[in-house]
Amino acid sequence: MTKKTRARLYIDCPLAKGGQASLSKDQAHYLRNVMRFELDELVTVFNGRDGEWLGRIAELGKRAGLVILQSQARKQQQEPDIWLLFAPIKKARNDFIVEKATELGVSSLWPVTTQRTQSGRINKDRMITQTVEAAEQCERLTLPEVHDGAVLQKALEDWPADRPLFILDETGDGQEPAKAFPKYAGKPAAILIGPEGGFDPNELEMIKAQPTAISISLGRRILRAETAVVAALSCWQSLCGDWR
Amino acid sequence: MTKKTRARLYIDCPLAKGGQASLSKDQAHYLRNVMRFELDELVTVFNGRDGEWLGRIAELGKRAGLVILQSQARKQQQEPDIWLLFAPIKKARNDFIVEKATELGVSSLWPVTTQRTQSGRINKDRMITQTVEAAEQCERLTLPEVHDGAVLQKALEDWPADRPLFILDETGDGQEPAKAFPKYAGKPAAILIGPEGGFDPNELEMIKAQPTAISISLGRRILRAETAVVAALSCWQSLCGDWR
Repeated sequence: MTKKTRARLYIDCPLAKGGQASLSKDQAHYLRNVMRFELDELVTVFNGRDGEWLGRIAELGKRAGLVILQSQARKQQQEPDIWLLFAPIKKARNDFIVEKATELGVSSLWPVTTQRTQSGRINKDRMITQTVEAAEQCERLTLPEVHDGAVLQKALEDWPADRPLFILDETGDGQEPAKAFPKYAGKPAAILIGPEGGFDPNELEMIKAQPTAISISLGRRILRAETAVVAALSCWQSLCGDWR
Repeated sequence: MTKKTRARLYIDCPLAKGGQASLSKDQAHYLRNVMRFELDELVTVFNGRDGEWLGRIAELGKRAGLVILQSQARKQQQEPDIWLLFAPIKKARNDFIVEKATELGVSSLWPVTTQRTQSGRINKDRMITQTVEAAEQCERLTLPEVHDGAVLQKALEDWPADRPLFILDETGDGQEPAKAFPKYAGKPAAILIGPEGGFDPNELEMIKAQPTAISISLGRRILRAETAVVAALSCWQSLCGDWR
């Protein structure tokens, strides 16, 4: 960003010079009561498609507010096409997966139920809120797409032939990421992380039988699910994604 | 591990066939009341130097217990020599750094105070407890060494000439990890992560002036400190460490 403002907000409306963007009740509260914004202060906004904009606070009430868009700070850019399929885990660690995956540039989040999935209901709204907060904070230009929960087997049906599915294989049989990932640099990809306790052996066979499946191994130490998410995405970004 | 037991404990005493290892009060409580171990059940123990052992619970009281060592399950192995220097951050996220760095095989943890460090006192005992728990859980054969807190400038004095210091440079001027790391594969290394809000510009100049300093950049998105820790360590392990 060329110019730093004190807040950066996702607003789902068209962004163009001279246009207006309405603040939600929560955003107005945040700017007014938490950040103590005053009228005419600049704020940064993005909508996932029109780049990043500087806007002037024209109205700021308790329940609403208005931003007048002044200038584009960054153009919209192509971002890596990397999906994360993950078995939801307990609340705090699940929050963590969503936050970190967003920071690490994931394009789609797919919560998938595996045979050993321990967590209960998938709270999609909560996940979306977390992606918004993380995207605002990390200066992404997009939000990751959050999908409805699905049974893993269902999610793998009709899998796109051009999208390698990297499976975190805790049995240690997988390839080294530094050898496997670079073969697919610049292409769409997906990473699948199993539940705490790993995949059921039959399930792992079923996944590996996918034509696009590639097993990956992250060393001898047993990583928690959320660590494996960050580790695998980081390796992918450094070898195939936009950290190159 | 060839044989899975229901618990894995760090015990700081020599481990050898037929030898005895005493359980601490907390360990006895954990095995007896939390895990409901019975006499003669096997438990896994390690001490950071004699490999991993299977032991039989010979005594298990409310405040103490005794393990008789039966057989070595894994030999001690050389682990990567990778230090992490990090500016302590707020409690939960600091806990996270310590846990994840342990899982990711860090050999030494150095809490360093930078000019913009926001956190207060460094609680070394808490950090040690967390490394023990994480090492037990992730099946490491060692604990990372936890150092006393130090001012960054002090920590960089007399820096070893054979240990590259990879600096996470948020200004975006750093090298790509996939290009910078492999040059130092198999060698000792250190990764330095700044505080939330980044290094002070003068401080960053001082760090970069170190003869062994190498700036690294993890893409355009702004990573939180704890994300950057996991990301940088994961890239290093995959390109230079024991994930190869």
